[in-house]
Amino acid sequence: MTPRPNPDLRIGLAGLGTVGIGVVKVIQRHSDLIAARAGRRVVITAVSARDQSKSRSTDLSGYAWETDPVALARRGDVDVFVEVMGGHEGPAKAATEAAIAAGKDVVTANKALLAHHGQALAVAAEAAGRIIRFEGAVAGGIPVIKALTEGLAGNQIKRVMGVMNGSCNYILTRMQNEGLSYQEVFDAAQQLGYLEADPNLDVGGIDAGHKLSLLAAIAFGTQVSFDAVELEGIGAISIDDIRLAADMGYRIKLLGVAQLTGRGLEQRMTPCLVPADSPLGQLQGGTNMVVLEGDAVGQIVLRGPGAGEGPTASAVMSDVIDIARGLRLPTFGQPAANLAVPIAAKATTTAPYYLRMTLLDKPGALAKIATCLGEAGVSIDRMRQYGHQGVNAPVLIVTHKAARDDIDHAVTRFAATGVLVGAPVALRIEEV
Amino acid sequence: MTPRPNPDLRIGLAGLGTVGIGVVKVIQRHSDLIAARAGRRVVITAVSARDQSKSRSTDLSGYAWETDPVALARRGDVDVFVEVMGGHEGPAKAATEAAIAAGKDVVTANKALLAHHGQALAVAAEAAGRIIRFEGAVAGGIPVIKALTEGLAGNQIKRVMGVMNGSCNYILTRMQNEGLSYQEVFDAAQQLGYLEADPNLDVGGIDAGHKLSLLAAIAFGTQVSFDAVELEGIGAISIDDIRLAADMGYRIKLLGVAQLTGRGLEQRMTPCLVPADSPLGQLQGGTNMVVLEGDAVGQIVLRGPGAGEGPTASAVMSDVIDIARGLRLPTFGQPAANLAVPIAAKATTTAPYYLRMTLLDKPGALAKIATCLGEAGVSIDRMRQYGHQGVNAPVLIVTHKAARDDIDHAVTRFAATGVLVGAPVALRIEEV
Repeated sequence: MTPRPNPDLRIGLAGLGTVGIGVVKVIQRHSDLIAARAGRRVVITAVSARDQSKSRSTDLSGYAWETDPVALARRGDVDVFVEVMGGHEGPAKAATEAAIAAGKDVVTANKALLAHHGQALAVAAEAAGRIIRFEGAVAGGIPVIKALTEGLAGNQIKRVMGVMNGSCNYILTRMQNEGLSYQEVFDAAQQLGYLEADPNLDVGGIDAGHKLSLLAAIAFGTQVSFDAVELEGIGAISIDDIRLAADMGYRIKLLGVAQLTGRGLEQRMTPCLVPADSPLGQLQGGTNMVVLEGDAVGQIVLRGPGAGEGPTASAVMSDVIDIARGLRLPTFGQPAANLAVPIAAKATTTAPYYLRMTLLDKPGALAKIATCLGEAGVSIDRMRQYGHQGVNAPVLIVTHKAARDDIDHAVTRFAATGVLVGAPVALRIEEV
Repeated sequence: MTPRPNPDLRIGLAGLGTVGIGVVKVIQRHSDLIAARAGRRVVITAVSARDQSKSRSTDLSGYAWETDPVALARRGDVDVFVEVMGGHEGPAKAATEAAIAAGKDVVTANKALLAHHGQALAVAAEAAGRIIRFEGAVAGGIPVIKALTEGLAGNQIKRVMGVMNGSCNYILTRMQNEGLSYQEVFDAAQQLGYLEADPNLDVGGIDAGHKLSLLAAIAFGTQVSFDAVELEGIGAISIDDIRLAADMGYRIKLLGVAQLTGRGLEQRMTPCLVPADSPLGQLQGGTNMVVLEGDAVGQIVLRGPGAGEGPTASAVMSDVIDIARGLRLPTFGQPAANLAVPIAAKATTTAPYYLRMTLLDKPGALAKIATCLGEAGVSIDRMRQYGHQGVNAPVLIVTHKAARDDIDHAVTRFAATGVLVGAPVALRIEEV
């Protein structure tokens, strides 16, 4: 008797933008390769997008068409609902919920949806005996969800760091390399289509913050808590800061950091200084990097394309092929009911800080600043005063390790000295 | 009715060296964490090593002791046989075969065993309905087997590269940073215990070649073919080459490269030049790096500790926890019977080459060399002649892309010119 071959795994694909078309292309191009690896064929049975008449770069004629993704999610000929529409409310949420209710597994690249509703969706999926996978939601083609959930499963995770918004890193490295202002590079990036329709999702750190909250949930066994991510965008980063940081041996990155402290889960997505010669410091352009630190493994660095048709499709297909192979895990690596409710800790870990300010060229000005720092309990590691600009003197201070509150306290005191021109800049230096 | 908890996963651990003790420590330290992630407890029931009386840094009194690893592999209270003894014949092989025959899953960190017997062991495991996992066998703590087998499963892999022997990279970077000779750093490394008892396993490229052959089998769906790996160690790398390569913007690495060409599977573990500012070029010390290139994802770079107690134990535990979670894959990612017998292709891909030679200070000497290259079909990209050393002139040539055969052909012709002092050095420049 010939063994009965495994049945095809049937995909319903919601969203035919860049990522969706990438998924179609991979499934069409690598039909045999995927079958060899998965032990069964992966086929698309139906697709969904808003506008069927739109011209697309690949042949979709073999697939049933649904205008409504909820209808797609409920189709009897769909085993896995692949959601690459985006958006954390509306159709993406409704269709994902419908897919779970209809007993489908879900593969999504939708970081916003999971950052806002990950816990509820995980609970629903487990109740239905289905799984949600989301490798494509974080750091594009880098298999970081898998590395963290499975590859480092024997570790207590100490810290997760990442440059996970390619547009921000593109802007910051172009400023650095070409000496351009933030606004100049921002405008160029917008013209090149590198930014979201609402650019604040990128430059405000929201997109990267979504990703960080997902990694933190897996790393620390907590419920995803995007609202607790301390967010600060890159809009206030000046070319002066980039230049002066470089002068001190640093690069400025929009860096996500998650770590469990004695006072709770600290999650930050903020501009930070990192050593210029570290892997994070050397990262150029739109490339992403995630650093995973575990108690047994030490430090693992993963680097790769963070967005785009091919890379994100590669990540989505990794989840699809896992399901085809029968590799099944709970959404965040362990049952949703076991995930702890995290206590949010606002940057309680100490770090050296970079402080830039402009002082009036008055005798004793610097002494007054140093006194403020001392009174706030902040000690100075390095200080540079640059050549005067008219009557003003740019001053750069690198502190020893200090708490953010103490830095803020000192900065508040600066104002009362009367020697400051404008507002000082304070950026954390992350030790990597 | 209370649901019956999943039964414990019972480990039989063969080998109590650095890695074995690391595995014990992780299982003891993270008993609850692993149970939360895996949904069941992972426990050691029995261990095996040559010398029970040896003092070890952790408490083993709770485990049954077997002097013979084959007896350990056959124990009724062992579900998974974890082999961290090493050696590609003898007890490691016998015990692994016994474990499979007795219906156990196998987790191994033994690259030599799999490089030599991987196909036969995979066939045996599949026939018995068991699996062999080996994350700890390649690149220490970096979850590269998982990234390649699962994370990039939707990609046709184009090329796999890696610096996968930390001792060699330690030697080469110390030579670079401190201007020391190969022999000086080799001796220091040996005194520090950084080298295998047979150092040729490290500096001859054998250990790294084992690892490359395992990655190649997964990447290209071929049977492991270590014998087809072109091996060249680092013993002939001089401080002159390191200095002159740096002068041209390169670093010398013992670099593994596997790629499928029109003429077969090319596998090389040889000293190569890579750009100094590339991730591979920047890699310092004992750290490992693997670069995976897929048609959809582009380039993924993974970096981390390549050896040691914690990192290798982390990788071994990733396999153990996969098994505890019910994540099961064939040894090389697809059924062993489907793996193609690879046709070995000896470095058929072209590349630029670095040529260093010393010429007699005679009129027309350089012209003669250039003529040899031209006649062999090799064109020159860059050439530097350095200040004379006595009557001799060091000359450095970077060629345009050329076939290795053509380079060898040219070098053979050099001898007949009579202008050469000593033997020229030819190193491939890998484009990364």
